[in-house]
Amino acid sequence: MKNAIGREIPERIGSREIVGFQGAFATLREGRKVPRYQKGAPQNEDKVLPSIEAAIDATGLSDGMTISFHHSFRDGDLVINQVLDACAKKGLKDLRLLPTALFPAHAGVIDHIKAGVVSRIDGSMNGPVGAFVSQGGKLSEPTVLRSHGGRWRAVEAGDAEIDVAFISAPQADAYGNATGIKGKTPCGSISFVAVDAQYAKKTVVVTSDLAPYPVHPMEIQQGWVDYVVVVDEIGDPENIASGTLRLTKSPTRLLIARLTTDAVVHSGYFVDEFSFQGGAGGISLAATKYLGDEMEKAGIVGSFGMGGGTKMLVGLLQRGLIRTILDGQAFDLDAVRSLRENPAHVMIDPGLYANYDSRGCATYKLDTAFLGATEVDLDFNVNVNTHSDGVLLHGIGGHQDVAAGASMTMITIPTLRGRIPVIVNSVTTVTTPGEVVDVIVTERGLAVNPKRGDLKERFLAAGLPIRELADIKAEVDEMIQPVRKPVFGDEIIAAIEWRDGTVIDVVRKVEGFE
Amino acid sequence: MKNAIGREIPERIGSREIVGFQGAFATLREGRKVPRYQKGAPQNEDKVLPSIEAAIDATGLSDGMTISFHHSFRDGDLVINQVLDACAKKGLKDLRLLPTALFPAHAGVIDHIKAGVVSRIDGSMNGPVGAFVSQGGKLSEPTVLRSHGGRWRAVEAGDAEIDVAFISAPQADAYGNATGIKGKTPCGSISFVAVDAQYAKKTVVVTSDLAPYPVHPMEIQQGWVDYVVVVDEIGDPENIASGTLRLTKSPTRLLIARLTTDAVVHSGYFVDEFSFQGGAGGISLAATKYLGDEMEKAGIVGSFGMGGGTKMLVGLLQRGLIRTILDGQAFDLDAVRSLRENPAHVMIDPGLYANYDSRGCATYKLDTAFLGATEVDLDFNVNVNTHSDGVLLHGIGGHQDVAAGASMTMITIPTLRGRIPVIVNSVTTVTTPGEVVDVIVTERGLAVNPKRGDLKERFLAAGLPIRELADIKAEVDEMIQPVRKPVFGDEIIAAIEWRDGTVIDVVRKVEGFE
Repeated sequence: MKNAIGREIPERIGSREIVGFQGAFATLREGRKVPRYQKGAPQNEDKVLPSIEAAIDATGLSDGMTISFHHSFRDGDLVINQVLDACAKKGLKDLRLLPTALFPAHAGVIDHIKAGVVSRIDGSMNGPVGAFVSQGGKLSEPTVLRSHGGRWRAVEAGDAEIDVAFISAPQADAYGNATGIKGKTPCGSISFVAVDAQYAKKTVVVTSDLAPYPVHPMEIQQGWVDYVVVVDEIGDPENIASGTLRLTKSPTRLLIARLTTDAVVHSGYFVDEFSFQGGAGGISLAATKYLGDEMEKAGIVGSFGMGGGTKMLVGLLQRGLIRTILDGQAFDLDAVRSLRENPAHVMIDPGLYANYDSRGCATYKLDTAFLGATEVDLDFNVNVNTHSDGVLLHGIGGHQDVAAGASMTMITIPTLRGRIPVIVNSVTTVTTPGEVVDVIVTERGLAVNPKRGDLKERFLAAGLPIRELADIKAEVDEMIQPVRKPVFGDEIIAAIEWRDGTVIDVVRKVEGFE
Repeated sequence: MKNAIGREIPERIGSREIVGFQGAFATLREGRKVPRYQKGAPQNEDKVLPSIEAAIDATGLSDGMTISFHHSFRDGDLVINQVLDACAKKGLKDLRLLPTALFPAHAGVIDHIKAGVVSRIDGSMNGPVGAFVSQGGKLSEPTVLRSHGGRWRAVEAGDAEIDVAFISAPQADAYGNATGIKGKTPCGSISFVAVDAQYAKKTVVVTSDLAPYPVHPMEIQQGWVDYVVVVDEIGDPENIASGTLRLTKSPTRLLIARLTTDAVVHSGYFVDEFSFQGGAGGISLAATKYLGDEMEKAGIVGSFGMGGGTKMLVGLLQRGLIRTILDGQAFDLDAVRSLRENPAHVMIDPGLYANYDSRGCATYKLDTAFLGATEVDLDFNVNVNTHSDGVLLHGIGGHQDVAAGASMTMITIPTLRGRIPVIVNSVTTVTTPGEVVDVIVTERGLAVNPKRGDLKERFLAAGLPIRELADIKAEVDEMIQPVRKPVFGDEIIAAIEWRDGTVIDVVRKVEGFE
């Protein structure tokens, strides 16, 4: 069957029946889903266990079960590997992983897949695990990729059932209260898995800093936690920011950031109480910097900025250019420090941020957002999951959630990466549909989605370099050799869920190249 | 049938089947209960309505439905009356109220009962409404009284279904984020009804201070809120502390506070990381003061104090005598200010505080607590709901939750109130069973529950005036005329639930006196 944007979707993927994407807000609904998993406990129970192995025994973790993790340490995480190694040692087989995201640090998962310890993964697989899985035939069921808000929704809706949640916690007390902003190796909020802790049958907090009761703030609450395990190391905070958090020096990227900022300034949204989200990419960081300078110049005070929390965003708060930061995950240690010290730097969980099945998301209050892409196409569809070679290398993150929410969604991209064009006729994989994308900003000019004639008029009046997307594409295509396209097999490697649980696209096995 | 402490309980009360009390921790269970009520929403929906009447229309509130409220303004609340007056004006009938508590300020509810607007009340009825209901024949079903933790549990378990939650919020934004610690008339945390907002079919925030997005902290989150109504006044914070928050000058009560403190000091619990809960009564406040002085003298730093937050507790935090305050409700404006300014003054909701169906409550971490009583009996059972005249005048509050949780639960009482003895053969109503009561402190000496021989030994070694409860009772009874006892009719006015949902006692209509 074809979904609403014309992508071919099977009726079933593995054991799951599929509903195709119908539109960004086409499936609004109300009612009751799945109850939280609750357990009564006697007075002042001792929850501390001596090791991850002991926690595996105590939770009754066994073959075929689902275990979950958060990614707040990003490429610095040391817990997923420790847990999987312990599972392997115990002889466990056929586990399903439900991480919020895997990173290159988790390349060891590949060996556990080969050994049959892990047979399914639902969650983002950034880097080597994604590349490995893209070869096909590695997992017993296709991966399901979900946005931050989509994963929260799926757990609440019973679409992603968890047997045991393993939660790495920079600081925890013996009763299970845990935070990510204190301890020996703070990483920022760990509330990504607050939903896991509430819906999983068993919850294990893994910490390197067991502190006196009561640890606070309590992203993870004692009432949700069965066991607490103390280990030597849970993560390396120096690698939280791996690879993303550099201010770009590329003239092309700085030009894109400049054009992005100019567009915001002339968008009509640039007034007091203005709000925006920038990510941790080089263009985004530069645009955030430029935007702060423009706000200062214009005397505008924004209501809130969202992130990933970054030093750049913290700077705007400290300069009084925004009143609030809403922070779902920290991208650097400046953000972690600010979370501890500044009450206007507010931790939020992905439910508040972006849960489709809620009466309103923080992303819905965004005036504008700068987001990246691996590809965009002439329908303004955006791909962030695969590259043009078809290999699944990235997760969705908050891309869908922010694009659907922001009044003006801007995709900031260079037209070429190496010799590979970024604007294509049809993206290899649709992550985010064109209906929620308003402006594409390149170093060769800005393209405005035809449904936003209002924006185009404003931009033209301001003298911004507005062009047709097809023209930019043609100009680029003339400069380069045609790219060899991947040849896909039948096997579906991954389903890309829209944030409401419908399937917007699938990723197939790469069999070779044209 | 008789329950585990020998109280006669019917098998049904009104439309409810009853399970009798089986023991303080006899019904621990695990599993899934009732799902939260969720609703999807389009991007940046407008939630502001012009009036409470408009909210009644928008929510579809109709005859026979259940509406809920919090009591964080205590006797200063102005919202319940406004909502009920609007319901009456709309001609609504047969509503069930599910307040966390009613106070004398809500005497107007009596007229709404007489007019048929309100036909059921599940929740504490402090003062005139309780006295009115005690006359019998006023409500279509008996009231159910629950502890703070018990009410939270009941909503999550589906034992108390809510159609519309009306949440008074000292500050809210137009998207529904709301807090009780800011705004024109702050009252302290409003998280008592965070569970209502998540489980009710519709949620309405009623605020007198509509502030720019995003209002934080977010005791109530945008994702749970359907509508926001702005009214002139929601409460008078000067009446939050009504009647409770005075340091006693009574020599008898000061003596009890002194003995309580001496008992704590010699209990074995008085070491570093010590924790305690004191309430807002005169004895409790004095004991908190004395205890602080003892901690300072001994060089002991406590892990946490719980309250109601009071100036007295805030003082201990400021003096460095406790590391943390866990605060479920503020009893004065000093506590509200501290909540805003001191990150070690931590807001908690009743779920974290005391939910029986959770993997651990904050009350379970208490070393000791000082609690009050209207009566105690020779089995150490405690009554806080009725007086010896049988009239239902008080709610349970956190009494059961704290008594069940604390390692040493102390009931601090004068032996006489006016000419009425407080120690009786059998309490008129059992709120809290003797099995979770350790020490009764009176001005005539301390009585230790026989199961706590360890405490008795320590107290005797310290030279504290330890006596048998029966001896104290006999001494008092000799001094006074026998009290005329109430004669009860058959009609059940109220069921007293233990915190697990079982029924520990019932309150019957008072027909006259012996």
